[in-house]
Amino acid sequence: MKDLISLGLDFGTESVRALLVDLKGHERGSSVVGYRHGQITQKLPGSKKNLLPDFALQHPRDWIDSAARAIRQALLSAKCVPSEIIGIGVDFTSCTMLPTKSDGTPLCLLKQFAAEPMAWPKLWKHHGARTQADAINALAHERKEPWLAHYGGTIGLEWFFPKVLETLEVAPKVYAAADVWLEAGDWFVWQLVGGSAKELARSTCQAGYKAMWNRQHGYPASEFFRAMHPKMATIVQDKLPGRFLAPGELAGGLSASMATKFGLRPGTPVSAAIIDAHAGVPGAGASEPGTLVMVMGTSSCHMLNSDRFQAVPGVAGIVEEGILPGMVGYETGQAAVGDAFDWLRRTLGQSDFSALTRMAAKIPAGSEGVICMDWFNGCRTPLMDGTLSGAFAGLTLRHTPAHLYRALLEASAFGVRWIVELLREHGVSVNRFVATGGLPHHNPLLVQIYADVLGESISVPPSKQGPALGAAILGALAAGKAVTGFSDVEEAIRTMAAPPRIRRATSTIKPRPGQVKSYSNIYPRYRQLANMLQQLSQG
Amino acid sequence: MKDLISLGLDFGTESVRALLVDLKGHERGSSVVGYRHGQITQKLPGSKKNLLPDFALQHPRDWIDSAARAIRQALLSAKCVPSEIIGIGVDFTSCTMLPTKSDGTPLCLLKQFAAEPMAWPKLWKHHGARTQADAINALAHERKEPWLAHYGGTIGLEWFFPKVLETLEVAPKVYAAADVWLEAGDWFVWQLVGGSAKELARSTCQAGYKAMWNRQHGYPASEFFRAMHPKMATIVQDKLPGRFLAPGELAGGLSASMATKFGLRPGTPVSAAIIDAHAGVPGAGASEPGTLVMVMGTSSCHMLNSDRFQAVPGVAGIVEEGILPGMVGYETGQAAVGDAFDWLRRTLGQSDFSALTRMAAKIPAGSEGVICMDWFNGCRTPLMDGTLSGAFAGLTLRHTPAHLYRALLEASAFGVRWIVELLREHGVSVNRFVATGGLPHHNPLLVQIYADVLGESISVPPSKQGPALGAAILGALAAGKAVTGFSDVEEAIRTMAAPPRIRRATSTIKPRPGQVKSYSNIYPRYRQLANMLQQLSQG
Repeated sequence: MKDLISLGLDFGTESVRALLVDLKGHERGSSVVGYRHGQITQKLPGSKKNLLPDFALQHPRDWIDSAARAIRQALLSAKCVPSEIIGIGVDFTSCTMLPTKSDGTPLCLLKQFAAEPMAWPKLWKHHGARTQADAINALAHERKEPWLAHYGGTIGLEWFFPKVLETLEVAPKVYAAADVWLEAGDWFVWQLVGGSAKELARSTCQAGYKAMWNRQHGYPASEFFRAMHPKMATIVQDKLPGRFLAPGELAGGLSASMATKFGLRPGTPVSAAIIDAHAGVPGAGASEPGTLVMVMGTSSCHMLNSDRFQAVPGVAGIVEEGILPGMVGYETGQAAVGDAFDWLRRTLGQSDFSALTRMAAKIPAGSEGVICMDWFNGCRTPLMDGTLSGAFAGLTLRHTPAHLYRALLEASAFGVRWIVELLREHGVSVNRFVATGGLPHHNPLLVQIYADVLGESISVPPSKQGPALGAAILGALAAGKAVTGFSDVEEAIRTMAAPPRIRRATSTIKPRPGQVKSYSNIYPRYRQLANMLQQLSQG
Repeated sequence: MKDLISLGLDFGTESVRALLVDLKGHERGSSVVGYRHGQITQKLPGSKKNLLPDFALQHPRDWIDSAARAIRQALLSAKCVPSEIIGIGVDFTSCTMLPTKSDGTPLCLLKQFAAEPMAWPKLWKHHGARTQADAINALAHERKEPWLAHYGGTIGLEWFFPKVLETLEVAPKVYAAADVWLEAGDWFVWQLVGGSAKELARSTCQAGYKAMWNRQHGYPASEFFRAMHPKMATIVQDKLPGRFLAPGELAGGLSASMATKFGLRPGTPVSAAIIDAHAGVPGAGASEPGTLVMVMGTSSCHMLNSDRFQAVPGVAGIVEEGILPGMVGYETGQAAVGDAFDWLRRTLGQSDFSALTRMAAKIPAGSEGVICMDWFNGCRTPLMDGTLSGAFAGLTLRHTPAHLYRALLEASAFGVRWIVELLREHGVSVNRFVATGGLPHHNPLLVQIYADVLGESISVPPSKQGPALGAAILGALAAGKAVTGFSDVEEAIRTMAAPPRIRRATSTIKPRPGQVKSYSNIYPRYRQLANMLQQLSQG
């Protein structure tokens, strides 16, 4: 009997993962293949010129080549034939973006632009557009742009239009030669399904979270772009062709040439792309509105679907169909989580976390008076201020390194509590909590402290490749009900990401009433410290 | 030719130092002898009962026995005969105090009280009188006691009357049996010179800094003591006999029995006692008003003589003849200095200070944004609040352990700047700075940062036994002009503690103009942080 299997492609910063999952959520095979050029931060391929220090570029051919190898290896490991693959989903880092010709050819692959950094795909972490981001924010505030409310009042220097404006200012010839500006995820999907630029499937997720686009009003108005730069006045009509599809909606069938390259069947349905972190939401089995999916790694991205749009000041991204079709996606985040833990470990001269964790677990809630502010890389939600910095207070000669470590874990949890209170105060329901990403499996003390500080149970699903699973679910959605039998998005997610087998393997961390009470008394002190540090930062 | 030599006895927490110095300031010999019973914190001698955790007692016989051995060894090492010793000065930890019978016998040496902790001398760091100190402070504020202005509005739990009240409340029989309550330094001087309780020489330094006494009004009024405890109403008349002498004034001649015990000449002049830290002022050659002597160790005591009394809120002790005859002594302090450095070193997992110091020296003024509050053991001057705690702010992922260390050194320096500004704002001149105690010699980076933050040159005299030298100078003063030829206190100090030989060996750390400017810009941020942490502490 032939199996029905979906392929999820998860494009990270260094490599792509191909995951094969059947419609009951069994993992059938997977493979990870690194990009030949990795992150391009020193010199362009074939060039001897140093890039500027803030630059991070990528090679578009790496994405195709690495995906092809990963897919073929995954098919082999799964002993799977091409006709069993019923759909393909793609998640991608964002905002990773590039300029192309109208046929999709990246400008960097044209001889005349090969030595021009601005013609290459800019990786999400490329920070060359700092002044452009500042200028765009200033302009948007001056003009009171309505879309600011979707982004907590600030857009980031890693976003789409700062990167475009950077190119226009630094390399106007590249800007002029570009027929299409687009997200790398959208470009990859376009390569899979072919077709004209006018038909290319732009992801509502990437456009909504990184390019100031929304369902009602589209992109910002022409006058705004003109004020940004006269040559950008008609950018939407001239250089942003395509149609908008939610993740899980069908972008098209796999082209013959790509099917050959990947060893798959032509016509295999391909979903519109999604941002990698956001793919973690379906990947964590969060099908229903009101579930906060905490994707916890070096930084954290906390995402939630809701059935209605509600402006929340300080929430960095509120996007209709931003995560899944038919729902409003809320994105919030903490700029330093695992990164901050690791920084503190190094600062305290510890070779690993074992001694710190063992001692910290014995210290009562509140770290015996030590209180920390977790802004070691600025504050994302809710203050949206990268210039803020971290702190420890309440320190006395009797405190140990483990007190500082525990205080940091508690600060991270207080940061989430602040986000949750903010959402609830503005009428956005939050009623279930799922922790995923790399950290929760490695740091059970952290998840326990989160549960105690939130006063809520937290589910930790077993999968360690949530985004790739999320992408595979989107592939199944693109295949459609006739093939999968799933009547809606929720059923697909529930069946593939949260079958009984996975639910049984999901651990649930419960809040401990005594600790919950302690933390409710301590939390106002954290907020007081936050207010004070904001004032201190303003001088 | 016979030399003229003075003997300084410096009673510390663990040991006594005997120092022989001639009238030109040459050190002729010295010896240190530990106390047989050290600090008594676990069990009384001959007892199996555990003391309470806050207790720290001493054995009065240790002081005599250890001093006798130290004096004999010092005389031997100096090849000095008894007739060459022209005077004896005594400095002592304070408030170390005890109850005695009218002949000076400590109650703890009477059989009926040997097992009663309250009958034993309480060492300065004995913290059993916490509730009594709180009660006395509350009462003093309620009654608006005028002497509060001399102590920055608060008296300490280590002071004289909290320790007396503790005894009265805990062991009323001991209180009733006591004919005399007195400082250990005064007791020791009494033992040296003999005489009746009525004639015993009480040090204006110890009475002024630790027992709410001052030249104009004496001790607090009888009504205050009655309100403290009905049985204490007449304590001044009944249990505090004696006369008040400034350090350097003649208490009497050495008794025949003590002369025999110590191997000295009967009748050798003995000065009134002084607190050990305060002896550092003459010991550092600070003879003139307006010199701030920073005695820097685990904590710091910054002392200054002035020619007039000026109430300064937040200054813990302003005492006429508190340090030297004819001048007003101002005492200020920082509760954690070397202690805090050592705590941070341990917390950062460093085995010594070498790497931290080397790296911290390369970091520019302001620690690249890291700012510290040095209240790791509360704040003495000017906030007088032991419940305040330390902090680090401005932390980001790019900061290193050396940034934290440098920020702590800077915080310590900002703390001194605050004290100096406070004194000057209230009309007390501060125009010269001397750093002494253990730290300045070990930590030149610290002294440089102090100089840069203060914008003032700092002298670091070579002597590492400043208090003992100060005590020896007091011995010479007690001997009188006819013997020494010194026409006044200043001449004695200048000649013995700051002769050309010592002045040449004194290093002067100058402020660097660029750094001074930087720190003047950063200092307001430290004060802002201080305000915020006060608020945070108050909740």
